Amino acid sequence: MLKNFKRPEDNLSKEERRAEIKRLRFSMVSTQQTVLAAKLPVIVLVEGWDSAGKGTLLNELICEMDPRFYRVVTFPRVSETQERYPFLQKFFQVLPENGKYLFMDTGWMEDTVGKYLRREINAEEYARRVKSCNVFERQLRDNGYVVVKFFLHISREEQLRRISELWENRDTAWRVTGDDLWQQQQYDRFLKTYDSFMEETGETFPWHVLDGASRNRGQYEALKAINDTVGRALENGRYVGRAADKEFPLLGGPSLKNADLDAVMEDEEYKTELKRLQKKLSALHNQIYRKRIPVVICYEGWDAAGKGGNIRRIAYPLDPRGFDVIPIASPTPGELARHYLWRFWTKLPRSGHIAIFDRTWYGRVMVERIEGFCSEDDWKRAYGEINEFEKELTDWGAVVLKFWIHIDPETQLERFTLRQNTPEKQWKITDEDWRNREKWPQYEEAVEEMLQKTSTAYAPWHIISSVDKKYARIQALRIVTDTLEKAVNDYVVRGIRSAWPETEKASKK
Amino acid sequence: MLKNFKRPEDNLSKEERRAEIKRLRFSMVSTQQTVLAAKLPVIVLVEGWDSAGKGTLLNELICEMDPRFYRVVTFPRVSETQERYPFLQKFFQVLPENGKYLFMDTGWMEDTVGKYLRREINAEEYARRVKSCNVFERQLRDNGYVVVKFFLHISREEQLRRISELWENRDTAWRVTGDDLWQQQQYDRFLKTYDSFMEETGETFPWHVLDGASRNRGQYEALKAINDTVGRALENGRYVGRAADKEFPLLGGPSLKNADLDAVMEDEEYKTELKRLQKKLSALHNQIYRKRIPVVICYEGWDAAGKGGNIRRIAYPLDPRGFDVIPIASPTPGELARHYLWRFWTKLPRSGHIAIFDRTWYGRVMVERIEGFCSEDDWKRAYGEINEFEKELTDWGAVVLKFWIHIDPETQLERFTLRQNTPEKQWKITDEDWRNREKWPQYEEAVEEMLQKTSTAYAPWHIISSVDKKYARIQALRIVTDTLEKAVNDYVVRGIRSAWPETEKASKK
Repeated sequence: MLKNFKRPEDNLSKEERRAEIKRLRFSMVSTQQTVLAAKLPVIVLVEGWDSAGKGTLLNELICEMDPRFYRVVTFPRVSETQERYPFLQKFFQVLPENGKYLFMDTGWMEDTVGKYLRREINAEEYARRVKSCNVFERQLRDNGYVVVKFFLHISREEQLRRISELWENRDTAWRVTGDDLWQQQQYDRFLKTYDSFMEETGETFPWHVLDGASRNRGQYEALKAINDTVGRALENGRYVGRAADKEFPLLGGPSLKNADLDAVMEDEEYKTELKRLQKKLSALHNQIYRKRIPVVICYEGWDAAGKGGNIRRIAYPLDPRGFDVIPIASPTPGELARHYLWRFWTKLPRSGHIAIFDRTWYGRVMVERIEGFCSEDDWKRAYGEINEFEKELTDWGAVVLKFWIHIDPETQLERFTLRQNTPEKQWKITDEDWRNREKWPQYEEAVEEMLQKTSTAYAPWHIISSVDKKYARIQALRIVTDTLEKAVNDYVVRGIRSAWPETEKASKK
Repeated sequence: MLKNFKRPEDNLSKEERRAEIKRLRFSMVSTQQTVLAAKLPVIVLVEGWDSAGKGTLLNELICEMDPRFYRVVTFPRVSETQERYPFLQKFFQVLPENGKYLFMDTGWMEDTVGKYLRREINAEEYARRVKSCNVFERQLRDNGYVVVKFFLHISREEQLRRISELWENRDTAWRVTGDDLWQQQQYDRFLKTYDSFMEETGETFPWHVLDGASRNRGQYEALKAINDTVGRALENGRYVGRAADKEFPLLGGPSLKNADLDAVMEDEEYKTELKRLQKKLSALHNQIYRKRIPVVICYEGWDAAGKGGNIRRIAYPLDPRGFDVIPIASPTPGELARHYLWRFWTKLPRSGHIAIFDRTWYGRVMVERIEGFCSEDDWKRAYGEINEFEKELTDWGAVVLKFWIHIDPETQLERFTLRQNTPEKQWKITDEDWRNREKWPQYEEAVEEMLQKTSTAYAPWHIISSVDKKYARIQALRIVTDTLEKAVNDYVVRGIRSAWPETEKASKK
């Protein structure tokens, strides 16, 4: 796309183009309300060469807009060794609300290509990230986002001219960085990689290459593309993606039917094991921290199954500086107005930390499905989206553990009744719990489907029988310690992890 | 407090103390619901020596609590040169919602004392920060927060013993850092400074010194203090502070009556000046960025006074990577459930950046006052709290600019009518605007009081006559460029700023 780039011909005189720019800007402003009413989230991504004028272009695009309707974000260059979250996290984090615009000054293209050419990630990881970008864009589209992608192009000579101009002026010389000079020097390699990146990521949303040499033409083309794309989206209405047939390494999943609900543990054994496993977990937490392995532990299960007490037994031996328990309640308005995984992407643990989710993203295929809080397309699509999400986490190097805390309806009734009759426990039981209980069969069906469709090789489900809570706690602790022990021992320097210095070495130096 | 510290006698046997700990933990859990219903936010601050066991203590405190009701935060040690926000920002940022607990693993004490003894801030700045801590605590109390402050104490010998123990074990040696060794070496200086810090900051919330040498005793004392404090607060109900008589360097403030609403600007002059000033502002933005001067520009004014267009003229020449326009709407539930300044503290610009607030914290003494969205005590107290807030900003090195965009009721009526009759502008006018208009006299009174009470020497108000919008834009641009020019020229290495390396020097090296 860049190699033989020719600026598009438009037969407009300079004057006419200026008038068009004015008209297009006005049109963007006058549709703000329609975009809001249509709940259409719009992302305008501006990528391009250093010194191509991305900042100026952005300012020209937003200069007439009302600040209530947009946000501009820019990403400081962070080296791979300093990144503490998965690659896509920073882009998920800034997703706009429905009806709002987000303007991005570089994004997933620069992050991927830049890190690759600066040798911060290897070819294998580069290829993986290109795939991630495609997954990301498809998920955005399927969840109603409109993305307009620009690449602001200048020639090698033009870039050199601009760098020199900055360099020769006393007041702007400081703006020229080693990064700029290096890109200038490596122009051909960048050109080739930018080109192949665009070829590989044009399927969901097309790339628009803009002529950075002419400020007016760049502006004009950009405004036209935004207006066209948003106009079409307004005509067609918010897009809702369908579930796609995708291949995941499914394990065939466990079934609730096979759970041994009669399993019990004697008090004596419980105490000994609890002590032993907690001590072990505490030591493992140290290692996890030093090796910067991120850990995500998910708890789902029936109401009154004993999730809370189970979580507390895991959390107790952990260093509070290195873990968080994240309770998931119904989404806030700001959360509802974004991609449904947004509230989880923004709560991930940093590398080396542990996040324990008390309920999770699986709400989408359980309560949201059953209560009709999302469309059928939404929850059917979610299995794949969730598998992709967890794949991103494990590719990043995370350990993902998923527990279904299991009881039978009779045990639940007993516990509900006990809560009802114990004053200090009454707050734990609500009318909603009783209503949910009536839907046990529907939930059971949803849970079975979830276990089947999301038990992947990289993030399998564990069913924990919790009629005897003590038995359940020890089971969970065993799985956690075994899995972490394995992760610590298997820990090898590879892929993304190769970029992490071991804290040990770093601190001994 | 530390010098002659003696562990409190309690005549309890080991067994009895253990039983008490159990009872107190249970009591904390069983009052969670009451705390939530009473909308009582509780902050438990754990300060203390390195290796005193703060993490363990925290875990013992939370181990029975429901994760929905608390959060634990810890602050990585950030050197003064790396801080990009005012000192108190990080503590404001983590404030809990009403009804929730926040547990802090070190906080404003360690940050202040540590930076001082590590020579990152000088004695003058240390003294200023101690005052800031007191302001912070008083503001918390006045806004209903309950704060329980602990210092976990161990002797020099005990600290040495613990460090050695960590050091001698292969698996824990990495935990011993230079910082720990240095504190051990400088134990006496730390002791003296911790002591004087506690003496100077015990007025609003008392310090509790805990015996770190005995895990059980520390726990017991901490649980007792939390239960006592929270219990008392529940009995007395949420505290609401009164306006205090405080001295601020008030300028006597401008008055709306003196504004020259007839001021106009010819089209020709407007165009020339706009171009000239915007060019100047663009160059100044560069300097602001390099010298890391933070800038906060506040816009308030009558509906339809022309704030939006005015803001756009300021924003247009700025580099989008270095500024944000922050529109302030009515607070979200999460914002309402916290200190009313929380939503502004969390939106401050980083050093070297510009934040333009489209409406501000002054809503407290205007709309919230007039519509009764807060109590009389709340808005009367707000003048002082806002002056303190802006003092923190300017002490940090920020330029704070406040504009009141002014018109008369007749002009407003004209503009309202125009909006009503222009299809693409209709969304800009709501019934609420008409209702507010009826309250013009009350607003006028509130605005005059605000101008009088919050025009400080460090953050004065500017009234901008905006009957002629062009005149208003040029006025605002002139004040912005003049003030920033002065800030850039006056910029001297002093106080907190002394810690900032000039980017220029840093990058030339």
